Amino acid sequence: MGQKKTGGLAGVIAGRSDICTVGQEGAGLTYRGYDIYDLADNACFEEVAHLLHHGHLPNAGELAAYRERLKSLRSLPGALKRALESIPAGTHPMDVLRTGCSVLGNLEPETEFSQQRDAADRLLSAFPSMLLYWHRFHTDHKRIETSTDDDSVAGHFLHLLHDAPPSELHRHTLDTSLILYAEHEFNASTFTARVITATLSDFHSAIAGAIGALRGPLHGGANEAAMELIQRFDSPQAAETGVRGMLARRELIMGFGHRVYTRVDPRNSVNKRMSRRLAGEVDDKRLYAVSEAIERVMWEEKKLFANADFYSASVYHFMGIPTYLFTPIFVCSRITGWSAHVFEQRADNKLIRPGAEYTGPSLKPWVPLAERD
Amino acid sequence: MGQKKTGGLAGVIAGRSDICTVGQEGAGLTYRGYDIYDLADNACFEEVAHLLHHGHLPNAGELAAYRERLKSLRSLPGALKRALESIPAGTHPMDVLRTGCSVLGNLEPETEFSQQRDAADRLLSAFPSMLLYWHRFHTDHKRIETSTDDDSVAGHFLHLLHDAPPSELHRHTLDTSLILYAEHEFNASTFTARVITATLSDFHSAIAGAIGALRGPLHGGANEAAMELIQRFDSPQAAETGVRGMLARRELIMGFGHRVYTRVDPRNSVNKRMSRRLAGEVDDKRLYAVSEAIERVMWEEKKLFANADFYSASVYHFMGIPTYLFTPIFVCSRITGWSAHVFEQRADNKLIRPGAEYTGPSLKPWVPLAERD
Repeated sequence: MGQKKTGGLAGVIAGRSDICTVGQEGAGLTYRGYDIYDLADNACFEEVAHLLHHGHLPNAGELAAYRERLKSLRSLPGALKRALESIPAGTHPMDVLRTGCSVLGNLEPETEFSQQRDAADRLLSAFPSMLLYWHRFHTDHKRIETSTDDDSVAGHFLHLLHDAPPSELHRHTLDTSLILYAEHEFNASTFTARVITATLSDFHSAIAGAIGALRGPLHGGANEAAMELIQRFDSPQAAETGVRGMLARRELIMGFGHRVYTRVDPRNSVNKRMSRRLAGEVDDKRLYAVSEAIERVMWEEKKLFANADFYSASVYHFMGIPTYLFTPIFVCSRITGWSAHVFEQRADNKLIRPGAEYTGPSLKPWVPLAERD
Repeated sequence: MGQKKTGGLAGVIAGRSDICTVGQEGAGLTYRGYDIYDLADNACFEEVAHLLHHGHLPNAGELAAYRERLKSLRSLPGALKRALESIPAGTHPMDVLRTGCSVLGNLEPETEFSQQRDAADRLLSAFPSMLLYWHRFHTDHKRIETSTDDDSVAGHFLHLLHDAPPSELHRHTLDTSLILYAEHEFNASTFTARVITATLSDFHSAIAGAIGALRGPLHGGANEAAMELIQRFDSPQAAETGVRGMLARRELIMGFGHRVYTRVDPRNSVNKRMSRRLAGEVDDKRLYAVSEAIERVMWEEKKLFANADFYSASVYHFMGIPTYLFTPIFVCSRITGWSAHVFEQRADNKLIRPGAEYTGPSLKPWVPLAERD
C-alpha cells in the first residue's frame, strides 16, 4: 500500500464503530442513528451524553436521574484545586485541562474497567469546574465553589464563568453548541483516545491524550483562530478585501473545509442561526456581517464551506466567553464522544499498531567514536 | 477496505519514516541504519539519543557537549516538585510521569516549534528526576536533590534510586537496556505521539499521550507482568508445570511474541546475556533458571519467542529496581524515539484522521421525551 493512498490515513478504515456517521448520504451527521438536526432542535446535551454513552435516548426518569448524578459530581478534591492554583495564569487552558485530567486520574484512579462509566461521568461534570476554577482563580483571585444547582452542563459552565446563572437564551445556545460538538467518529482526538485505550491503558490516560490532540490548531484550535480572523476586520468590505489578499498570499484561513465533509458541514447552519440571533440580541453590527462576508469570499474563491468552528467563534464571543476558552468548551462537549469510543474500543479490543514506509538510510557499518568526523 | 485487513491497522502503512526498521531481512532492528547489536555492544545511550534526534552519531566533541547539556537539565522547578509531592504514594508511576510531563509543559511551555529540541532534551533529563523525586519522597520521606554529577542517564537514574552511584556493571547494564528500548518505529505509543503532533499540538501534549499509551499492559506494561509471572515459581520444574497449566487454561502470558517480529525479537539475546551475568553476580539460583524454563515451554508449546520485555524484567530486578518502576524506565528510554518522531512528523505534516466502518443503527426518527419507554 503506497504512501499516497494512506497519507494521514485518509480514507483508511481503522476499525468498526456503532456511534456516529459523518458525511453519509441523506444525513450529514448522526449520533447512534439520530440526525444531528433532530438532536440540535429537540434534545438537551445531557440526553445526547446519555445517548452516546448508553446507545439509547433516556426516558424521563433516566434523564432526571442522570442530571442529578452529573450535578453531584461537580466538586473538585482539594489536591486538584491546589494543583490548578499552581498552574501559571498564562498557561494554555487546554494544558490546564490536560493536567487536571491527569491529576484527577491520580486522585480517583480507574483501577478496573468496570469503573469506566463513573470515570466518564466524573470528567463530564468536572471539566467545566476545573477550567473555571483555574480561570477565576487567576482573573478574579477567587477560590470559587464549583458545585452549583444548575440543571445542565451548559448552565453550570456559564454560571461559573460569569458568577451568575445565565439567561435561558444563552444557556440554550451553549447547550446546542455542546450537542453539535459532542461526537465526530474517528477524528484525531477520538482516534488518539482509541489508540491509547487499545493498549488496555486507563481512562484518564486516553482522555489526557485526546485533549492534547484537540489542542492543535488543525483540530480543536480552529475556532480560536477563526475568532482572531473575524476580529481583524471593521466591516464586511474590509473582510472581503482582507481575505482575498490572504488567499492571494496563500495564507491559511481556519474554519473552512473538512477532511471528511466535501460540500457542507451540517453543523454550520445551526451555528450560523445561533450567531445571527445573538448578534441581534447584543445589537452587533460588525462581527456577524464580517463572518458572512468571509464565508462568501471563501466559497466564491476556493469553493470552501464554513465548518463547525467558524460561526461557533462569534456565538461564544456574543455570550461573553473569552476566546482562549473556546477550545476547552470543545473538551467539555467531546468528552461524551471520547468516552463512548473508549467503551466501544474496550468491548472489542485489538492493539492499534500500524507500520511505516521506511525511507531512511540502508544498513551502515559501526564507526568507533574516535574515527568520526 | 474491509475490517479484516485493517483490524488494529496491522500491516497498514500510516506514513513514511527515516528512523527505524523493525523485522527487516538481514537486521532485526536498526536505528538510522545502525544495527541494534552494533549499538548495544558499542554505543552509550547518549550517543543513541543523539543519533535518533540528529540523524547521525556524534563525534567526541558533540558527545561530550551533549552529556554536559543533559546533566545541566536535571533540576526540577519548585512548582513541579510540589505537584509531585501531592501525587499519592499508591499512584501508578506511569501516571506520575504523565502528570509530571503535563505540569512541566505548563511551567516551561513549548511556545513555538523552534524550541522542540530543548523540550526533548529537557524531558530526557527530567524524567528520571521526576520519577525518583516522587518515589523517594514517598518511600524515604526525603526531598532529594535531583541534580547529580553522573555522566549518564543510566548512572543518574540508579544514583537517585539507591542514593549512591551505581557499580559500573549496573550502570552499563541499564545503559544497554535504555539503548534497546529507545526506538521501535510506529509502535502504539509512538503512533499516539504522531497522531497528536499531526494536529500541530505542542511537544508535551504528544509525550503525555505517548506515556498514557505505553502504560497499557499490551504495550509497556508487559515487563511488569513478566516479573510477576517469574516470581510465582520456586524452581524451573514448577515454572514448567505452571506455565503448561496456564496455557491449557488459555491464560495470557506476557513477554512473548510480537505484532511485527515473527520468529525472534533481536533484543532478547542481549537482555538474556545481561540477565545471566547479573544472576551470577547476585548468586541467583532461581529467577534466571525459571525464566529460561518459561522461555523453553513457550517455544515448545506455542512457538512463541521471548520479546524484549521478558528478560529485562529479571535484569531490572537483579539491580534492585522495584517492579513498579519497570515501565517508567521504558519512558526514560523511549522519550528519545518519541522525540525523533515528533520532529519527523512536524517536518512533513499531515493530519492523521482515519475513517470507521459504521456498524450502528440506520437513521431513526426522533422520539419526544414523553413518548419514550
